[in-house]
Amino acid sequence: MEFWFTERQTEHLGITLRVRESLLVEQTPFQHLAVLDTYQYGRMLVLDGAIQTTEADEFVYHEMITHVPMTVHPKPKEVLVIGGGDGGTVREILKHPDLKHVRLVEVDDRVVAAARRFLPTLSQALDDPRVEVMITDGAEHVRAMRGVYDVIIVDSTDPVGPAVKLFQQDFYQAVHEALTAEGVFVTQSKSPYLDRKLIREVLGIVRSLFPVALPYTAAVPTYPSGLWSFVLGSKVNHPVKFDEGRAEKLKTRFYSPEVHRAAFVLPREIRGDLLPTE
Amino acid sequence: MEFWFTERQTEHLGITLRVRESLLVEQTPFQHLAVLDTYQYGRMLVLDGAIQTTEADEFVYHEMITHVPMTVHPKPKEVLVIGGGDGGTVREILKHPDLKHVRLVEVDDRVVAAARRFLPTLSQALDDPRVEVMITDGAEHVRAMRGVYDVIIVDSTDPVGPAVKLFQQDFYQAVHEALTAEGVFVTQSKSPYLDRKLIREVLGIVRSLFPVALPYTAAVPTYPSGLWSFVLGSKVNHPVKFDEGRAEKLKTRFYSPEVHRAAFVLPREIRGDLLPTE
Repeated sequence: MEFWFTERQTEHLGITLRVRESLLVEQTPFQHLAVLDTYQYGRMLVLDGAIQTTEADEFVYHEMITHVPMTVHPKPKEVLVIGGGDGGTVREILKHPDLKHVRLVEVDDRVVAAARRFLPTLSQALDDPRVEVMITDGAEHVRAMRGVYDVIIVDSTDPVGPAVKLFQQDFYQAVHEALTAEGVFVTQSKSPYLDRKLIREVLGIVRSLFPVALPYTAAVPTYPSGLWSFVLGSKVNHPVKFDEGRAEKLKTRFYSPEVHRAAFVLPREIRGDLLPTE
Repeated sequence: MEFWFTERQTEHLGITLRVRESLLVEQTPFQHLAVLDTYQYGRMLVLDGAIQTTEADEFVYHEMITHVPMTVHPKPKEVLVIGGGDGGTVREILKHPDLKHVRLVEVDDRVVAAARRFLPTLSQALDDPRVEVMITDGAEHVRAMRGVYDVIIVDSTDPVGPAVKLFQQDFYQAVHEALTAEGVFVTQSKSPYLDRKLIREVLGIVRSLFPVALPYTAAVPTYPSGLWSFVLGSKVNHPVKFDEGRAEKLKTRFYSPEVHRAAFVLPREIRGDLLPTE
């Protein structure tokens, strides 16, 4: 008997993966959660039917959402992650030598528990003494903070369910205020092929708050269309003028200084659509 | 009733698309051929169960397999396409102002016929007076030619069925001899995430024949893993020293001079695996 999991990525498109074993299926107070062991990509975290991360390709997303903003800031010491309860983003943040403290604010403690049990290569980072895990609402937390974080990374689910408020104007305003004077912010912003309208909206808001706001991309096999986008906002530093020395020394599988620069090069049509004035 | 087409991209991984209408299904002397009209990506050409091209994302693949080698050659006049019976690559080649003649050598005339009937935005290029369509074996054709082509593009199916011989040493040797003194060659070479071994083999052979041999990538949503690779061999010119003026003027949706350069930037691990000595 073969057991296949299919994510319907849009109404008309899906990815399907053969499953060796279903390790965990539960309804949390926030979402439906599953951990499946797949033949192709290893263990896989699925929230509300959408693939969040797999053991085989998680490095692409986690390195690219982390090292780009972390090297745009000249010396990040205090970092906030919203979402990201699997620990992959925290693992990457800890590679930066000047880091003093990273706070992970995850709304659903069942995600953290599932990752601790089934995804140790991601979640073991959460045991580092520099890491603090807070189980609370990320938007509320950010509203309570002023000038605290050097880097804020929104490593959330897509804007349905618990993450809706993480894609709205007042949240980005609060993020801006929670950052230090040279603060850098990044959020995942879905597929440049399938979700252009969302990226335009996010970019428009971020641009209204930060002097520098740019999208970048990375090729993540298990995400819809295989190409993913991020929107970065920076108070001072331009994202292609980053700390190349520190970037070069990072132990990574995907990220490099060259990859950092290339990630900001958008296909001509997408660039014309998202950055029409440049 | 919903009708879904699923391509099993590997033994354990698939893409699934909702189909509006099946326009053509036939067994040709060479392969199984289908044209399906999908809700997500428009009309789609499928050979032996593998998606070859869709109306919505074909521009990525066709622009990237064409404009990179065409701008690496300083003035391509005589060009050969092996495979590519849909006409998409020919359409892109015709955008280059000095082009005199492009010969499309496709082994299966049913592919050309299907494209002429159902994919006019690709196949109408085949009616241009500069285009010659030959229905014959590409490997045999290349062996008969010496010093004729400025650029040779292998726009083939994957190395199963009729295309097996297009991924072998003696074919690449014949390609090298069929090129002019400044000749440039490119072949598609599958996914950098899923087919690293194939890319290494192709690159090894191309490097043994050409002084310059490099892989590059592009994000094609309907191909396995969403990231695709190409291997380029050049007799004289380095692929990142190309005709930027001509590149800038091309009417494209994906390709640009910046995209050209960024396409040669490989993720750190893939680069270490494919180009260990650099």
